[in-house]
Amino acid sequence: MLTLSDLHPLTAYLTRIAHLQSAASVLSWDQETYMPRGGAAARADVLATLQSVAHQQFTAPELEDLLARWIDLETGSVFDPEAEEPARALLREVRRDYRRARRLPTPFVAHLEKTCALAHGAWLEAREKRDFRLFLPHLDMIVALKREEAAYIGYEGTAYDALLDAFEPGMTASRLTPLFADLNIRLKALLDRIRSSGVRPPSLPPGPYDTQRQIAFGSLVLSAMGYAFDQGRLDQAAHPFTTGFHPTDVRLTTRVAADDVTSSLFSCLHEGGHGLYDQGLDPAHYGTPLGESVSLGMHESQSRLWENCVGRSIEFWRHFYPLLRESFPGPLADVSIETFHGAINTVKPSLIRVEADELTYNFHIMVRYELEQELIAGRLAPADLPGAWNEAMRATVGVAPRHDGEGVLQDIHWAHGAFGYFPTYTLGNLYAAQFWQQAQRDIADLPTLIEGGRLAPLVGWLRDRIHRWGRMYSSDALLRRVTGESVNPDHFMTYLEGKFAAIYRLG
Amino acid sequence: MLTLSDLHPLTAYLTRIAHLQSAASVLSWDQETYMPRGGAAARADVLATLQSVAHQQFTAPELEDLLARWIDLETGSVFDPEAEEPARALLREVRRDYRRARRLPTPFVAHLEKTCALAHGAWLEAREKRDFRLFLPHLDMIVALKREEAAYIGYEGTAYDALLDAFEPGMTASRLTPLFADLNIRLKALLDRIRSSGVRPPSLPPGPYDTQRQIAFGSLVLSAMGYAFDQGRLDQAAHPFTTGFHPTDVRLTTRVAADDVTSSLFSCLHEGGHGLYDQGLDPAHYGTPLGESVSLGMHESQSRLWENCVGRSIEFWRHFYPLLRESFPGPLADVSIETFHGAINTVKPSLIRVEADELTYNFHIMVRYELEQELIAGRLAPADLPGAWNEAMRATVGVAPRHDGEGVLQDIHWAHGAFGYFPTYTLGNLYAAQFWQQAQRDIADLPTLIEGGRLAPLVGWLRDRIHRWGRMYSSDALLRRVTGESVNPDHFMTYLEGKFAAIYRLG
Repeated sequence: MLTLSDLHPLTAYLTRIAHLQSAASVLSWDQETYMPRGGAAARADVLATLQSVAHQQFTAPELEDLLARWIDLETGSVFDPEAEEPARALLREVRRDYRRARRLPTPFVAHLEKTCALAHGAWLEAREKRDFRLFLPHLDMIVALKREEAAYIGYEGTAYDALLDAFEPGMTASRLTPLFADLNIRLKALLDRIRSSGVRPPSLPPGPYDTQRQIAFGSLVLSAMGYAFDQGRLDQAAHPFTTGFHPTDVRLTTRVAADDVTSSLFSCLHEGGHGLYDQGLDPAHYGTPLGESVSLGMHESQSRLWENCVGRSIEFWRHFYPLLRESFPGPLADVSIETFHGAINTVKPSLIRVEADELTYNFHIMVRYELEQELIAGRLAPADLPGAWNEAMRATVGVAPRHDGEGVLQDIHWAHGAFGYFPTYTLGNLYAAQFWQQAQRDIADLPTLIEGGRLAPLVGWLRDRIHRWGRMYSSDALLRRVTGESVNPDHFMTYLEGKFAAIYRLG
Repeated sequence: MLTLSDLHPLTAYLTRIAHLQSAASVLSWDQETYMPRGGAAARADVLATLQSVAHQQFTAPELEDLLARWIDLETGSVFDPEAEEPARALLREVRRDYRRARRLPTPFVAHLEKTCALAHGAWLEAREKRDFRLFLPHLDMIVALKREEAAYIGYEGTAYDALLDAFEPGMTASRLTPLFADLNIRLKALLDRIRSSGVRPPSLPPGPYDTQRQIAFGSLVLSAMGYAFDQGRLDQAAHPFTTGFHPTDVRLTTRVAADDVTSSLFSCLHEGGHGLYDQGLDPAHYGTPLGESVSLGMHESQSRLWENCVGRSIEFWRHFYPLLRESFPGPLADVSIETFHGAINTVKPSLIRVEADELTYNFHIMVRYELEQELIAGRLAPADLPGAWNEAMRATVGVAPRHDGEGVLQDIHWAHGAFGYFPTYTLGNLYAAQFWQQAQRDIADLPTLIEGGRLAPLVGWLRDRIHRWGRMYSSDALLRRVTGESVNPDHFMTYLEGKFAAIYRLG
């Protein structure tokens, strides 16, 4: 019976490649946190070389020979019919990655990496100066390269599918589009009910909230969530993100606004959810698919579960609000917990995705999902993107940016070449609600535990059901294993309706 | 006529290897600044893989074939008798590196890298807990590996020469030992005169000096020195160091003590000198020896020139002392510039090398130079090092540590496997004094310029005479080019005697 330890020559080979990728991740983290601007061009070259060496090694005949010992590369059938499940899963996933990687020429990989690394600095500057033209030449090149990438990879439906599949394996636009269309209708209906309720939750005082104290409070919440600071850290970045180099070194970033205590707070909860997933991967499987997260949708389910299902619940704040008030006694002196809870659950179409409420957030995703499909299909030129963005925002979210800094330049993803990434955010919302409902069934008295600040049982449940499995199961299989069904937006709608019925006193 | 551009296939190959080494440097910087402790083991593996890929590529037949097109690998003779000087120098230096590298098996390189990366964390903890035993097993392994390395490399004199040559090419213990012995006698004589002068410069008030303000003041001085912050940064580390990933990304670190304003100040000046050298290397030659510093002794000459020749001069403080006093009006209210200048030039045997005065500093080096020779020769066991250290400190410096934290554990170098590194510090002092004397001849009114805070002419002189040449000339050749003679301790002694005669009113 084929076991994981029989695969040692393969996993040892893969681990060395993972080292190169971990190194690249450290360099990318540094690029977004501490790197001086002048270092950008040299950094792009270094990243390109690292990715090209990693790609070369991953597509080398040695790896093919290793794989071909145990699995038929064409059909995907594992030779040993009795192979144990983890070995089978590992071979399945490495074959998948190998076949994708082999279709891309190494110089193309290096060129794409360098282009995106250089685009990063341009995006930062363009965003700061609210000037899309500074970013346009980079975006032009990136879109062209991503179209080329899709052509190399191949696809059955649309070119976009080839890119989407990198982030959410097995997902296609033909499945996603009707799912999103249906969700859009239901969310709009709920939004209409909320609007006609006449209830307007108050907003929070504009501070100032001391930024150092905000970081300290975020760290306190993260520690309570079980995020291990001796195996991670929290820094500031223009666009909050989480990156893991190994389960023992997983880093979070946040951004802090002196006039808005919720911005950094919810980005800490969000990134903390990602961080728990990465810290919960099995270090014994580092370097292999069994030590990697399933998909970005699944990753996002973890961040959204903490940010929203937990972090916007009244139970969570019964424990944490007194502590928050202690940290900011001035601005929060006259804010009751009910007012606070209402304020952090205000539904209102707005401009910035990462600060949007749980409901209208998904409209932001739908805007990006539409536009990136148009870009990749070649039906929309990058030069026309700002206009198309503003138009789509008006039509779908109901608000229009005053400038590109709060419009098309707000997100870093396209500068990173991440096309097909955005829809995983809404998938994450759907998965999160589905897991959340299941957790409440599985964990006795979960609301009471959370009210007491006892988050460990929930963390344990997530580790046990989701984190530790890596890519052993597909995203869909994992969802079915844990919740008994495939993705089903009913749970998300039930969750939202339940919450907003109370806050907005819906009939 | 062979030119540098003819060598493009070689330099392109080398540049890709340099990318891997730059990546490793970023990871090492991160390890000493921001990495969470839990990430140490994984980091060691990643560094080992990076070094092993770099070593593999550097010793691959491709490189030998490339080199052999233009230079006889055995004799070192360049085939084209008309080859231009830079091409000739590049081939000479690559051949040198290649021959050294080829003698080391790649698994040995990876093993050494991993061992040192792991030793780093152990050293940090041992130092903090003042417990040598925590570090001993690591040091045991490192000394064994360095002895092995010397055996692989080969040597004519002693095993130690093989290691020393990595840091100061061409230098041997047989040249260094008599140089140091002579210097020791002359320094001791000067110390005796200082001691019997009866003059005791006052010490500075113990603060507190706000640590943020110290960092801000250090940054101000660095900017005045011409260190480019858009191509670098200043962070804190347990042991201050400078590292360059490329001339456009050169990072400094310092450590800050609230009760001693000079500690961070002089470490900023010191590291700033290193930083200027690295920022002054020609980016067009990145990845090749012509874009690298000549030797550690030469590098140290730049840091010591700024820290001591400039940074402990009365002229420098005529400009900067009023600013320092503005930053710390409380503690420095009653301290005159003369008192300050006396305090920062106090000669007094002490325990910590990096905080030692310019004279007794060299005794610290001599202690380490003796001990590391004994370790590498196998005449001293690492277990016996603390005793030997304390004894040597008593005999050579005249003071004995109360615990290993201020004794044998104070320096990071041996944990990094850097044996043969320490003597380059005293060489740096000698080179610095020699350059300093020459700069005063070459730059009209240098003292007046410095008094006016105008440091650019000195920076320009250093760039032009030293930094931009990379490894075009050997350390000795460069010294002769700039100052007209090889290393000559007379200049250092003249410099010290001149300075201390004034401060200590020596007859």
